[in-house]
Amino acid sequence: MSRPPYDHVAFIGLGLIASSMCHAIRAAGWDCTITGTARSAETRDIAREIGLCDRVTDSAAEAVEGADLVVLCVPVGAMGGVMEEIAPHLKPGATVSDVGSVKGAVIEAVTPHLPDGVWFIPAHPLAGTEHSGPRSGFATLFQNRWCLMTPIEGTPEAEVARLDRFWTGIGANVDMMDADHHDLVLAVTSHAPHLIAYTMVGVADDLRRVTASEVINYSAAGFRDFTRIAASDPTMWRDVFLNNKAATLEILGRFTEELFALQRAIRTGDGDHLFDYFTRTRDIRRGIIDAGQDTDAPDFGRVGPDTSKAAPAADTPPAKRSQGG
Amino acid sequence: MSRPPYDHVAFIGLGLIASSMCHAIRAAGWDCTITGTARSAETRDIAREIGLCDRVTDSAAEAVEGADLVVLCVPVGAMGGVMEEIAPHLKPGATVSDVGSVKGAVIEAVTPHLPDGVWFIPAHPLAGTEHSGPRSGFATLFQNRWCLMTPIEGTPEAEVARLDRFWTGIGANVDMMDADHHDLVLAVTSHAPHLIAYTMVGVADDLRRVTASEVINYSAAGFRDFTRIAASDPTMWRDVFLNNKAATLEILGRFTEELFALQRAIRTGDGDHLFDYFTRTRDIRRGIIDAGQDTDAPDFGRVGPDTSKAAPAADTPPAKRSQGG
Repeated sequence: MSRPPYDHVAFIGLGLIASSMCHAIRAAGWDCTITGTARSAETRDIAREIGLCDRVTDSAAEAVEGADLVVLCVPVGAMGGVMEEIAPHLKPGATVSDVGSVKGAVIEAVTPHLPDGVWFIPAHPLAGTEHSGPRSGFATLFQNRWCLMTPIEGTPEAEVARLDRFWTGIGANVDMMDADHHDLVLAVTSHAPHLIAYTMVGVADDLRRVTASEVINYSAAGFRDFTRIAASDPTMWRDVFLNNKAATLEILGRFTEELFALQRAIRTGDGDHLFDYFTRTRDIRRGIIDAGQDTDAPDFGRVGPDTSKAAPAADTPPAKRSQGG
Repeated sequence: MSRPPYDHVAFIGLGLIASSMCHAIRAAGWDCTITGTARSAETRDIAREIGLCDRVTDSAAEAVEGADLVVLCVPVGAMGGVMEEIAPHLKPGATVSDVGSVKGAVIEAVTPHLPDGVWFIPAHPLAGTEHSGPRSGFATLFQNRWCLMTPIEGTPEAEVARLDRFWTGIGANVDMMDADHHDLVLAVTSHAPHLIAYTMVGVADDLRRVTASEVINYSAAGFRDFTRIAASDPTMWRDVFLNNKAATLEILGRFTEELFALQRAIRTGDGDHLFDYFTRTRDIRRGIIDAGQDTDAPDFGRVGPDTSKAAPAADTPPAKRSQGG
């Protein structure tokens, strides 16, 4: 076993991210003690049953005892309360980190409870699936995904570097930025898209003239991609929006403005406006594939349940111009 | 080889759908002649090079000569013009069909040019990927996908049944409905989601305070799913919106209303409203998976380029409640 950045890691909350981190730590071959706890007894029982941690404790106080790294893996709105609860039990010199999708509000909630000689280094791995809970984790979740760290002033560089080594060791690319900038970037790449997906799925569900079975059966025409995003954990996402209000509302405002312009183009029959807009957006997709952040396989490479033959290889170049479609 | 529903099928337009139909006809083992043409010489050259059809002709008139089934696979806005062009060359008793995403406007554009003794049976396979062009097709595209047919009054039932056998034979499930209802259903499951995805990607691209590389690198947090949808063929989608104005604008109106309600909930901190909304949308996802219209594998089962281990099996049940996420 190789030398781990931390000898003892404790997780508060044992959902998708924490359970994936547990698997990834094992996969890294580190000789590292893992403790963990969760608020719900059911989650703790499952974690024990599947052997997620070396020890699953009933309280957060017990879980953090002796830990060098404590990772808060609870919804953003619960971070402050958890920090207050564990503060008296933290080992001097320990690092507390988190995996919340919002950084400004978490820093505000956590730092007032931080004891002297303990460091808080906020982090956010940009990884996940629509599944949640302790059974949903897997070791490769962070492979080639980014983990954004937003260190606060006064944190020793060596401790930031240590957490960087930890995330790099379990497969992530690490980048550093300011918390405010993080919250704006994520409003664009995550928070606004999630709210939009939730909204569209809710509208479809509401529509009385289209039956539920029609919405379901005919979802492959585009809608089903939205339903995957809108199947994400409700508690987590409620907290994200409540804690990144300003940036999310700003991006949604921009979105609505743009949507109205496109609606007007539809209404007035301005085909050129639509065509130009739709052409521009193709380039971004190409950039994402080139950066290794998504697959070029058609339809994400997903294969239907009745499909016996695979789709063509991902490197088949699409023709520049198509007449059909 | 088994007896095909049609002895000779002609395609006008050789993009993703037509080329997939060609492959699917071969895979069905039908003894069937396939001819085809496309407006662009480049597309015709590629089709010849890869042997897509038995014969690729330079004109639509030649392509349809002697065909029992002519399938219009051009953007919705081009259907009327193509129909006018081929009308004098159609074999008596032939069926003309299409694959357009809009049905009302296509019927209006096509039927005035329909010669006596030739049937027009509108159809729409709900299948596709973000790729386009003659190289992008594959035989299994229609497996377990729905093909919606919207027959018009006076069409012989036997001819409708024959086209039904054709689509069923290449893997699709067939359903019949009224053209207006089709256009409303598709506005919900396809047209509005596509416009929304295009809008969100455009907003991200526009935002000066977030760099393009940030949008690209950090896209895995949700945004990248939107970029796939927004990479679809611009001509096709321009025509869809211009030809399904009323239904698309109606659904977008409902969408905006709902989005404003959620924005207000964020602004006022109404967490219960958000939580209830986000919980409801999970059920639809479950229905889509149960109906075999999407995979339950996390993240559509897509595997990152650097991933050496697979995600967990699709049948792993997510815990009812998660604390982390």
